[in-house]
Amino acid sequence: MKTRAAVAFQAGKPLEIVEVDLQGPQPGEVLVEIMATGVCHTDAFTLSGDDPEGAFPAILGHEGAGIVREVGAGVTSLKPGDHVIPLYTAECRNCKFCLNPKTNLCQAVRATQGQGLMPDGTSRFSLDGKPILHYMGCSTFSNFTVLPEISLAKIREDAPFDLACYIGCGVTTGVGVVAFDAKVEPGSNVVVFGLGGIGLNVIQGAKMVGANKIIGIDINPSKVEIAKQFGMTDFINPKEVENVVDAIIEATDGGADYSFECIGNVNTMRQALECCHKGWGESYIIGVAGAGQEISTRPFQLVTGRVWRGTAFGGARGRTDVPKVVDWFMDGKINIKDLITHKMPLQDINKAFDLMHSGESIRSVVEF
Amino acid sequence: MKTRAAVAFQAGKPLEIVEVDLQGPQPGEVLVEIMATGVCHTDAFTLSGDDPEGAFPAILGHEGAGIVREVGAGVTSLKPGDHVIPLYTAECRNCKFCLNPKTNLCQAVRATQGQGLMPDGTSRFSLDGKPILHYMGCSTFSNFTVLPEISLAKIREDAPFDLACYIGCGVTTGVGVVAFDAKVEPGSNVVVFGLGGIGLNVIQGAKMVGANKIIGIDINPSKVEIAKQFGMTDFINPKEVENVVDAIIEATDGGADYSFECIGNVNTMRQALECCHKGWGESYIIGVAGAGQEISTRPFQLVTGRVWRGTAFGGARGRTDVPKVVDWFMDGKINIKDLITHKMPLQDINKAFDLMHSGESIRSVVEF
Repeated sequence: MKTRAAVAFQAGKPLEIVEVDLQGPQPGEVLVEIMATGVCHTDAFTLSGDDPEGAFPAILGHEGAGIVREVGAGVTSLKPGDHVIPLYTAECRNCKFCLNPKTNLCQAVRATQGQGLMPDGTSRFSLDGKPILHYMGCSTFSNFTVLPEISLAKIREDAPFDLACYIGCGVTTGVGVVAFDAKVEPGSNVVVFGLGGIGLNVIQGAKMVGANKIIGIDINPSKVEIAKQFGMTDFINPKEVENVVDAIIEATDGGADYSFECIGNVNTMRQALECCHKGWGESYIIGVAGAGQEISTRPFQLVTGRVWRGTAFGGARGRTDVPKVVDWFMDGKINIKDLITHKMPLQDINKAFDLMHSGESIRSVVEF
Repeated sequence: MKTRAAVAFQAGKPLEIVEVDLQGPQPGEVLVEIMATGVCHTDAFTLSGDDPEGAFPAILGHEGAGIVREVGAGVTSLKPGDHVIPLYTAECRNCKFCLNPKTNLCQAVRATQGQGLMPDGTSRFSLDGKPILHYMGCSTFSNFTVLPEISLAKIREDAPFDLACYIGCGVTTGVGVVAFDAKVEPGSNVVVFGLGGIGLNVIQGAKMVGANKIIGIDINPSKVEIAKQFGMTDFINPKEVENVVDAIIEATDGGADYSFECIGNVNTMRQALECCHKGWGESYIIGVAGAGQEISTRPFQLVTGRVWRGTAFGGARGRTDVPKVVDWFMDGKINIKDLITHKMPLQDINKAFDLMHSGESIRSVVEF
């Protein structure tokens, strides 16, 4: 079949909207009609050429929602008409990782996915007979896409696609790190470095689970208003205090119970660890640092009880947990609407990248 | 009263055996007759002058066992005749730290203890009218010493002092990090960097809880025999492999479930983290690094599920957990006898430091 898609032909260039060829689902695969997709910093990172694993030409996009249109042989958990969210972290429920309750990093399709290919080592997309690569196992910048069955979360049918798509990455990453990874207890003091989309989702996750203080850290005071709307109780601008770590320790009577780094800066990663409470404070790295950059601290910080951790996809097991996040959204426990600042049709997708780079958007969503 | 003690008059000099004056226990304090004390690397670190918090003159020693001889006003949990192990990490059971199940770092007497003083801000030791400092709240290099009630674990009376004293630091640190901090599950793969006294105790802790592979890492092959005796199943000499991290990952089919750094070297701390299994491997820093040294890694190591932690006193809450470790010892679950390689009277205590520095001893114990 043919499908309209935004193709990244090479790094650093705008996407091009073209008709590409899409092979139907092979055994264990599913054809999905994407109804809406968010445009995420990770797409921009890969498109920029800075992602050492980025490969071209490819169809980017990993934050979508859509409808199953066809299933390949052997697919049992999905049928045409099901509403789904594509998962860049699959959940096979059979690998060593899925069988360990401490992680969500299913490895079943990891190797081929990292190469932009389906599990059989080939691509379903092509143009003029030449293959175009998949991206993060999703390729949601295409009206139709093919995914492994284990890379799709079935969701309720009353969830609107134009908002639910954000659950495919940003919402689940931010709300999930609080709920699934850190399991933040009610009454905890939480510190969030960076008040972009991920930071706001961490904040609303912390509010949802009953955190006490939710302290936002950002050098841009224009973000205070929406952060407060999402649950931030206190704001510290590092430019306005002598030492942000000391300021946090003072504001929390000893330090954060949990801190979350949502920027991708190795210096703020260190601050996020060191502002944690002696004895038990845990710091989670969410942001992606530049290639080759390293985090560092004095080992004394760990010996005195702080814990340094990271998270991917908010610790969510996609097929199991994404439907829960959709429920939280539909129950009004989390707010997605006010985070979707821009919507556009596919032909305008390059504007989403411009809005992101200029800092004007929280999240842009492309509707097909 | 008078007591014989080994006094550290200044950094870098041998201890001097002298009669010092000891004031009796004040309210909430306890007079203990030390029957035996281990000599630990931490004592040597402070004596060397490298410890930035070291202060002199002081009576060092923090790994003892003895008998209560007198209690001050208001002491209710101990009486003369009770057998005890002094605790450099107190357990008041009332502070914010004791009331948080995630930590053992009671802060009740922390500030004064760090200054070498009793909780009222004074010292019980003096010579010719001039105060001599306490050390780590214990000062077990004295035949008699005074401690806060909350800094003493009451232990069973059939435990021999000359072996039980090692539970006051090294044994509990090594066995405890496995049992109390990491809570290593049966079947786990464990990697231990450094086969000194702490490493051997980590190994026997891992064996006690049913670990699968217990891999020892050391550049000194002479330690293999005793490490095997204590439960090591595999040995890797970093000098004999191209890359020790790769060698561990291969030997464990993906990496350690738990790793423990028992050296105090920031490079091996990094290796200990990076040899952990993607998704869930946890690395514990036990060794104390040199002043100002820093650990570092790529944040990707944490984002892909490894966890970086530290431990102090094996995560043991002294009054609660030290009696448990004594039981494990008396039940034959852990071996202390073969770790005590040298015994000597107090007047020979400087030999213990010489044996430590030359690498001839695992642990020297001074018997009074």
